[in-house]
Amino acid sequence: MNTVSADPQLAEPYLLGWLASLGLDVDYVRAEGNTLYYLGESGEEIPVLDFAGGYGSLILGHNHPEITEYAQRLIASQTPVHAQFSRHPYANDVAVALNRILQRELGTDENYSAIFANTGAEAVEAAVKHAELDRGLRLAELRSRLAENLAAARAAVAGGAAVAAEAYRLVGVEAGDGAEGFEALAAEIERRNAEQTGRPPVLLTLEGGFHGKLVGSVQLTHNEGYRAPFAALATPARFIPAGSAQALKAVLESERATVFDLVVEDGTVSVAERNSPVFCAFVLEPIQGEGGIRVLSDEFAQEIQRACAEVDCPVIVDEVQSGMGRSGDFLASSAMGLRGDYYALAKSLGGGIAKTSVMLTRQSRYRSEFELVHSSTFAKDAFSCSISRKVLEILEADDGAAYRTVRERGEKLLGMLEAVRADFPDVVKDVRGRGLMLGLEFHDQSGSGSETIREAAPLLGYSVAGYLMREHRIRTFPTASAVNTLRFEPSLYLTDAEIEQLDGGLRGACVLFRTHDGAGLTGTAAEA
Amino acid sequence: MNTVSADPQLAEPYLLGWLASLGLDVDYVRAEGNTLYYLGESGEEIPVLDFAGGYGSLILGHNHPEITEYAQRLIASQTPVHAQFSRHPYANDVAVALNRILQRELGTDENYSAIFANTGAEAVEAAVKHAELDRGLRLAELRSRLAENLAAARAAVAGGAAVAAEAYRLVGVEAGDGAEGFEALAAEIERRNAEQTGRPPVLLTLEGGFHGKLVGSVQLTHNEGYRAPFAALATPARFIPAGSAQALKAVLESERATVFDLVVEDGTVSVAERNSPVFCAFVLEPIQGEGGIRVLSDEFAQEIQRACAEVDCPVIVDEVQSGMGRSGDFLASSAMGLRGDYYALAKSLGGGIAKTSVMLTRQSRYRSEFELVHSSTFAKDAFSCSISRKVLEILEADDGAAYRTVRERGEKLLGMLEAVRADFPDVVKDVRGRGLMLGLEFHDQSGSGSETIREAAPLLGYSVAGYLMREHRIRTFPTASAVNTLRFEPSLYLTDAEIEQLDGGLRGACVLFRTHDGAGLTGTAAEA
Repeated sequence: MNTVSADPQLAEPYLLGWLASLGLDVDYVRAEGNTLYYLGESGEEIPVLDFAGGYGSLILGHNHPEITEYAQRLIASQTPVHAQFSRHPYANDVAVALNRILQRELGTDENYSAIFANTGAEAVEAAVKHAELDRGLRLAELRSRLAENLAAARAAVAGGAAVAAEAYRLVGVEAGDGAEGFEALAAEIERRNAEQTGRPPVLLTLEGGFHGKLVGSVQLTHNEGYRAPFAALATPARFIPAGSAQALKAVLESERATVFDLVVEDGTVSVAERNSPVFCAFVLEPIQGEGGIRVLSDEFAQEIQRACAEVDCPVIVDEVQSGMGRSGDFLASSAMGLRGDYYALAKSLGGGIAKTSVMLTRQSRYRSEFELVHSSTFAKDAFSCSISRKVLEILEADDGAAYRTVRERGEKLLGMLEAVRADFPDVVKDVRGRGLMLGLEFHDQSGSGSETIREAAPLLGYSVAGYLMREHRIRTFPTASAVNTLRFEPSLYLTDAEIEQLDGGLRGACVLFRTHDGAGLTGTAAEA
Repeated sequence: MNTVSADPQLAEPYLLGWLASLGLDVDYVRAEGNTLYYLGESGEEIPVLDFAGGYGSLILGHNHPEITEYAQRLIASQTPVHAQFSRHPYANDVAVALNRILQRELGTDENYSAIFANTGAEAVEAAVKHAELDRGLRLAELRSRLAENLAAARAAVAGGAAVAAEAYRLVGVEAGDGAEGFEALAAEIERRNAEQTGRPPVLLTLEGGFHGKLVGSVQLTHNEGYRAPFAALATPARFIPAGSAQALKAVLESERATVFDLVVEDGTVSVAERNSPVFCAFVLEPIQGEGGIRVLSDEFAQEIQRACAEVDCPVIVDEVQSGMGRSGDFLASSAMGLRGDYYALAKSLGGGIAKTSVMLTRQSRYRSEFELVHSSTFAKDAFSCSISRKVLEILEADDGAAYRTVRERGEKLLGMLEAVRADFPDVVKDVRGRGLMLGLEFHDQSGSGSETIREAAPLLGYSVAGYLMREHRIRTFPTASAVNTLRFEPSLYLTDAEIEQLDGGLRGACVLFRTHDGAGLTGTAAEA
């Protein structure tokens, strides 16, 4: 089924060998809807039903005819792909369309400014960079306000104002006389404020999260295998267990930075403690993709928003995978009552053809200086923006019919998964997700009666993927950081027949685990 | 000349306003060859001659007919864009084609392994990540070898071996008796080795360099405006002045890390000092693009290679802009006698349509583990890889006719620039570059007799860009981190007439500076 080449393997041969050992080294030659095709021995096309869906990039399916037709027209009409540093009305069109959707879902009339990038990870990093630029500017504003207030207090003391005894106590300086005492107080305040305002930025995120694999974003990705080898290259994040309001509170409290400000009132100088902007951002996925298709609870999402607002920590909502209608709303987070300061969108925004992403910043946080220091040669181009605009048109058509379809198809698919779980409670541990972002978690198989299954247990989902491919011509993968969970992210054009095909495949896998049939799983000869 | 929209400006309005103030807010509707078109008031197409060339992405020009025809065919035939975790023969084809070219230019038969990404910055970060993974593995190997040798030495001492007095002196421990003395020595060695092997990675790069604007790569980009606001997010780099072998040596010496190893020979335990892999990588552009089109000297390039080899620091050659034939060779660095451990390629590799990049690692440095921890949803796709393959075919056709053309056209363009400099030595400070990556540097104009020109001096090149657009329908930009230098990166299809048009534009600008004609520069009313 694969073309044989005499060329050396120079593009990830190790990965390919591993895929081959699972029967996943398929050479696809065509893609349409929810189907990928490879060539059989006589050159005939063999269909594979795709539930991996480009890791969530294909809410409109492979090669959606309206998108491919439009893409060809754009290319045929010599669209100016490379026109950096000019007017980009097509980019603004996307920004305006996104704002219309966001404002509707969030119930706000505040605008979001758009910075374009090329991949999900790039959009996340742009958001983090913007948040850090903003933090730096807020720090500078704070420092200058503190200096002004110190000068005003010094002048007041010189003019006879008293220093409140409480001020000395708060700062931890022995109360002294008049100007001399004040200078001791001021010196200690300045020392402590310099220390607090000079602390490195704190990046908060959730355990189980995935935000990309670039130098910065990989430090926000919880999976240790992806993250640890590169830990020395970028600021580490603090990971908070999803759902634990207590842990959230404890981390915010332990990382909090405060400064002392001097206040002159009624001829008395006193000290006030104020927050210093040490928190760069809280980055989260409303539905964790790689982490096992885990939906954040509404309560915890809102708790994060509340707690972050208290310490002026912006929230970056990573909807790279969950957005663009996949959850049944344009943003999975909007249905949770969560409003982000930033959004990162990618994957399905490119319609299955373009590589594009966008970072949105709410107006009240936006710093236009960012436009002069951040850019990307490939980003904001006419081709990608036009495709994105078309994707949004398709999603929004007929008063959002696409979202309704995702919900309806998602319920149907979920119903099937639930039924499999009901029939195989000994094999299926959990079924979860929202819309067309669903997962099915198998029970751990490290105690299986089959040695083959026990050996497959540490990377269980990949063995199931191999089985589904081999026996049922179904393509899916486990979530990369929780490999007992299979992911299902088909397009909204999912048919009942496709659901049925998956039903058969999953039940087949369940029977294998129930009957300890290792040979059936791996397709090798039966065990002795 | 621009379409007027009632929509709010939500995609970088601040940047757009600034471009508008310079007359650079052009709304391009079509692109072909070296020409971008906008619409005039009666809807007629107005051509603009493009020397910006997508910041070097268009060695084959805008919408090269072979590329656009092929792109349409790929889309029409439903190419599987999203087929992650399968066999990617098209990616291997690109890797094989690149190896053929690299091996020819470098005179080696060692293979380079390919990891695909989507943008230049992503390829640079992939290289840095790989280098850091490799460094970590080398560190782990070193630590385990040190532990083994320590154990062997301890056993030897227990068996009566002597410890050389020199060992105590070297480590700085008072010589003691037998096993007790050895344990004091071992403790100090372990303490110091832990300290040295635990040091953060050192990233070296050149002043004036540009390697991207993502969280990690922006710290390798010298321009302080781009880099400083984000300095707390990632490991800072050490910047070395290009051309200074002395500075290079001093930095390598000051950053070097060493450990003490124990050696048993002829019944005596002695101490040897060894390098510890503290250097992650030296990242450099053979021709600095944003830094002012500055060509690294062959001597310095080779000196970097020699010095880095001594401390086992891999060299990452960033050919994102200078590669793919732009310099007259496929790699600008190969003509310098420089051989990289890594290469980052992007921009023109996408043929002006695809967003793609690749990171190449020489086999002797390659760690296949990297394939399991690094990935990107959008990377390594059939569409981009097929386009790249086509680009390489066009460049390599007729025994490399494209490279010869670049050299010939480059010489012609350079000749024109040199003639302008010869005629305006008071205005033009320097002309430099290689192939079709050329720059023209104006003398500083902050002392101009025209107030308007003095005001324009800090961002001089942008004002010239505005003038060239307005008066000569020529598009170019200054190099972003050296704004007195205009960049010229046209396609290899550059015609004599196009060179002549630029000649006229540049001479026009030179006359303005010579005659202190600020109104002529900005297109506003003459000064009082």
